[in-house]
Amino acid sequence: MSHKITLLYDRIRVEEKELINAAEKRGVHLKAVDAKALHVVASDLQADKELFGDVILERCISFFRGLYLTAVLESKGITVINNFETANICGNKLLTTLALAKAGVPTPKTVIAFTPEEAEKALEELGYPAVIKPVFGSWGRLVAPLRDREMAQYILEHRAEMGSPLHQIYYIQEMVERPPRDIRTIVVGDELVAAIYRYAPPNEWRTNIARGGKAEPCPVTPELEELVLKAAKAVGGGVLGVDVLESPRGLLVNEVNSTVEFRGAMSASKIDIPGKIVDYALEKARR
Amino acid sequence: MSHKITLLYDRIRVEEKELINAAEKRGVHLKAVDAKALHVVASDLQADKELFGDVILERCISFFRGLYLTAVLESKGITVINNFETANICGNKLLTTLALAKAGVPTPKTVIAFTPEEAEKALEELGYPAVIKPVFGSWGRLVAPLRDREMAQYILEHRAEMGSPLHQIYYIQEMVERPPRDIRTIVVGDELVAAIYRYAPPNEWRTNIARGGKAEPCPVTPELEELVLKAAKAVGGGVLGVDVLESPRGLLVNEVNSTVEFRGAMSASKIDIPGKIVDYALEKARR
Amino acid sequence: MSHKITLLYDRIRVEEKELINAAEKRGVHLKAVDAKALHVVASDLQADKELFGDVILERCISFFRGLYLTAVLESKGITVINNFETANICGNKLLTTLALAKAGVPTPKTVIAFTPEEAEKALEELGYPAVIKPVFGSWGRLVAPLRDREMAQYILEHRAEMGSPLHQIYYIQEMVERPPRDIRTIVVGDELVAAIYRYAPPNEWRTNIARGGKAEPCPVTPELEELVLKAAKAVGGGVLGVDVLESPRGLLVNEVNSTVEFRGAMSASKIDIPGKIVDYALEKARR
Amino acid sequence: MSHKITLLYDRIRVEEKELINAAEKRGVHLKAVDAKALHVVASDLQADKELFGDVILERCISFFRGLYLTAVLESKGITVINNFETANICGNKLLTTLALAKAGVPTPKTVIAFTPEEAEKALEELGYPAVIKPVFGSWGRLVAPLRDREMAQYILEHRAEMGSPLHQIYYIQEMVERPPRDIRTIVVGDELVAAIYRYAPPNEWRTNIARGGKAEPCPVTPELEELVLKAAKAVGGGVLGVDVLESPRGLLVNEVNSTVEFRGAMSASKIDIPGKIVDYALEKARR
Repeated sequence: MSHKITLLYDRIRVEEKELINAAEKRGVHLKAVDAKALHVVASDLQADKELFGDVILERCISFFRGLYLTAVLESKGITVINNFETANICGNKLLTTLALAKAGVPTPKTVIAFTPEEAEKALEELGYPAVIKPVFGSWGRLVAPLRDREMAQYILEHRAEMGSPLHQIYYIQEMVERPPRDIRTIVVGDELVAAIYRYAPPNEWRTNIARGGKAEPCPVTPELEELVLKAAKAVGGGVLGVDVLESPRGLLVNEVNSTVEFRGAMSASKIDIPGKIVDYALEKARR
Repeated sequence: MSHKITLLYDRIRVEEKELINAAEKRGVHLKAVDAKALHVVASDLQADKELFGDVILERCISFFRGLYLTAVLESKGITVINNFETANICGNKLLTTLALAKAGVPTPKTVIAFTPEEAEKALEELGYPAVIKPVFGSWGRLVAPLRDREMAQYILEHRAEMGSPLHQIYYIQEMVERPPRDIRTIVVGDELVAAIYRYAPPNEWRTNIARGGKAEPCPVTPELEELVLKAAKAVGGGVLGVDVLESPRGLLVNEVNSTVEFRGAMSASKIDIPGKIVDYALEKARR
Repeated sequence: MSHKITLLYDRIRVEEKELINAAEKRGVHLKAVDAKALHVVASDLQADKELFGDVILERCISFFRGLYLTAVLESKGITVINNFETANICGNKLLTTLALAKAGVPTPKTVIAFTPEEAEKALEELGYPAVIKPVFGSWGRLVAPLRDREMAQYILEHRAEMGSPLHQIYYIQEMVERPPRDIRTIVVGDELVAAIYRYAPPNEWRTNIARGGKAEPCPVTPELEELVLKAAKAVGGGVLGVDVLESPRGLLVNEVNSTVEFRGAMSASKIDIPGKIVDYALEKARR
Repeated sequence: MSHKITLLYDRIRVEEKELINAAEKRGVHLKAVDAKALHVVASDLQADKELFGDVILERCISFFRGLYLTAVLESKGITVINNFETANICGNKLLTTLALAKAGVPTPKTVIAFTPEEAEKALEELGYPAVIKPVFGSWGRLVAPLRDREMAQYILEHRAEMGSPLHQIYYIQEMVERPPRDIRTIVVGDELVAAIYRYAPPNEWRTNIARGGKAEPCPVTPELEELVLKAAKAVGGGVLGVDVLESPRGLLVNEVNSTVEFRGAMSASKIDIPGKIVDYALEKARR
């Protein structure tokens, strides 16, 4: 097979190693390119096909680095997984919420404000407890439960004190009455390939595996599958982690992750997720 | 006339006052809404038509505030000028460069990197002097000429020291051999409505009016008009400030500004720019 | 009278106006010098006596600006109120605590740590609720009550995310069981000149006047006076705001403020605080 | 020998390993305590002698962490090398300049300002080229040569954009006409124990070893020794790195470093610097 697939990374995690191994098993060499060691011309359309091949698996940990490299490489006619549109939506919790709402996918009620004062008003309307999230960010970083008005006031004051304009976008959600777990599903193309429960670790409300959350297998019901595939389509499709909450009013899609970490899902579900991803990339390369 | 137009602002500058006056002359009330005093539900499609009317002129100084309010309001079916796509491209110098390149609009040669080390390599290739710009930002803030390797080294070190991930996107350009001026044009829909020269103030390389740049009328040649309208179309159209450089290899489009400040262009060109913008908004409202 | 007193400011607040008026009543011209419009040679001992006079009342809002100007001017032989030592201790809550402890002045129990993990351990030992404060900062900014382990965890995570090394100094205190007020006293030299109660505004735990706290007169008991003068002496004396908490184990000194805002104390106590300060400065000038 | 010496560190570098070895050779166990894993009560004077011993060698890389731990431990009666006063002066380039000036030690001409505008005025007076330094910081980080007015303007703009108030202290120096080297001397107590030349690496103006500067032995003249010991005494003495510039008007003291990195000086001079430091600590412990 002569199709060239490039793995664009900024740190080789377990996931990237698994992708390289899965490719090798298929007789494909996944060329790993360090995004930190690149500079690319943006003002013309010439592509370095030698360097980047036909299809790129973009796996940068730094969101903006991965996103903007995707933009440049796509403009040069290279296929990137995930594509810019999807990565741009999924990396931004507000754009994700809007895409889901437009597609009729149920989500937690979400309000956006741009000052701490308006965020407090939004919270009064949503009621306590509620949740605040940074619009950009991974692993639950700075995601916080706001138990009452006082806790909200102090968290908002800390956010306001942070320098970046990105921290002045206040993304506020109802706190969904869920069990101490959520459902992380992995979607590759049109297929829901794995689903796990993620249980919050002791003394922690967040369920992220990176925070010590424990993974267990989760049965895939038709309801879950339909919802998750609809959500994946709503954000433009690709290789995605769709997070689902079990709420009193049914399943809700909480977030959709591009550049998904699948280590926990792989070991809990015993599914060959990296193999599925490599097959998907090969299929794209063939077209 | 019963069409409702809303002016969404976060500070009333000269430009916003002029827009309100221009609307009044046309018998239209431009309802001014302070974006800092808003919180909006993002997870449903219901629109507060009473508050936002049919068409919104988005004029926030804070780029992210304006952009994300546009995203939310558009998802609710409200027409926003400029639309999300255009605002998203123009607020990001890299996406602007890519859109111009794809449309075949000549621009300064531009390279993107994500570490100071790669930025230095890009600079060696481009040669000195060169220019560094933040991907996000107005009024020439942190735009700097890099006269030689040493100056580049120290500016890059300062950039690297800044906390935000947005400052770790290194957008590097050739320094165009231009006269100590550029051409700022104002586009409204399909029309180039005004063009001025902006002369850099004494002891300053940047031409921004906000930095003391002086405005003088600039004749609109067919070449300029064609280029500028092509650039405007490339980024999605709307009300735009298209900046053009007179280079040895002809005119180059340097930047395209959404939420354009037109004070200088208005007084130098004697053109009723706010009137043109209000007419454009009314036309959109009628559709 | 020919002694020259200079008021060094960066913004003229009510307090600075009152100081100027009080000086005028005494036939003294208080020359106001804007610290933002100064640059001073640090590497020699020559003083611009014309500009700075004999005594400087340092009233900068920016702590570091005021502190380092004080250092430079003192090194040139100019008397500054407050002197560098006092300003340095009072502007730093940790150094204040150490100075009070060394002098045997009772204070809230205070622990220092340099990572969120150690701060959590300190909190477990102190027990909840507790208080976290930035080592530098005014008006109660970023001072937060930590009601329980969860609130502590999220506030610490937000602090850790802030860029400056100054935010990585975790100053943790027991929460003193006090009425919803504290006692703000004003000390000038060897005299406690005014005392007020500061009542926390509705929906706020902090008592700072700048946050809407209400001032009421507070009787000066011998116990209060002795404690406050001891605290003032412990930090080096001068013009100070000494804050006292009424705890179950008696009065505790909570903070000592240099460059004190005395507006609230002045109106609640009817004491001519600015007059006392000007008299103190004149006395220093005479020596 | 039963005196207890504690090495307080936050990362074990070559220097810390050498100190531990040097102590072992002297039959002394240097107990290494990780400052990141400490929290200490600041509000009382009780000392954990078991943990901290009689004398502490404070070797934290984080300046504020080391400084404030020193303050707390000293207040508990523990001897810290260097003491708080010395560490506080040497960690702050402005306080160092003032201490040297007061002691009559020649230094580069230095001006302090608190806004970019005043910094520019100071630069016009000093003339170009000049040097800007952060008041806090090691390894030459953000120290920059300002070759001309334009470079100064852009570096100042970048500094102003940085969030921390510490970056708003503008410490500006004449650029001393020196060879492409400086002299780094190591002082331990009353003795100048080693002197090296540090040569700036290619394409770099700074001479810091951490930036690739090369060390070579430097002869100790009586003039050098007298100057360096006077400088060490001016800042309070201890274990210090005194940096000297060879200027047309004679030797100038440029900086004095507490928590000095002596790796380069040790290998170039063949002097047993860690042994000298341990002996000094033992002597302090005996008193």
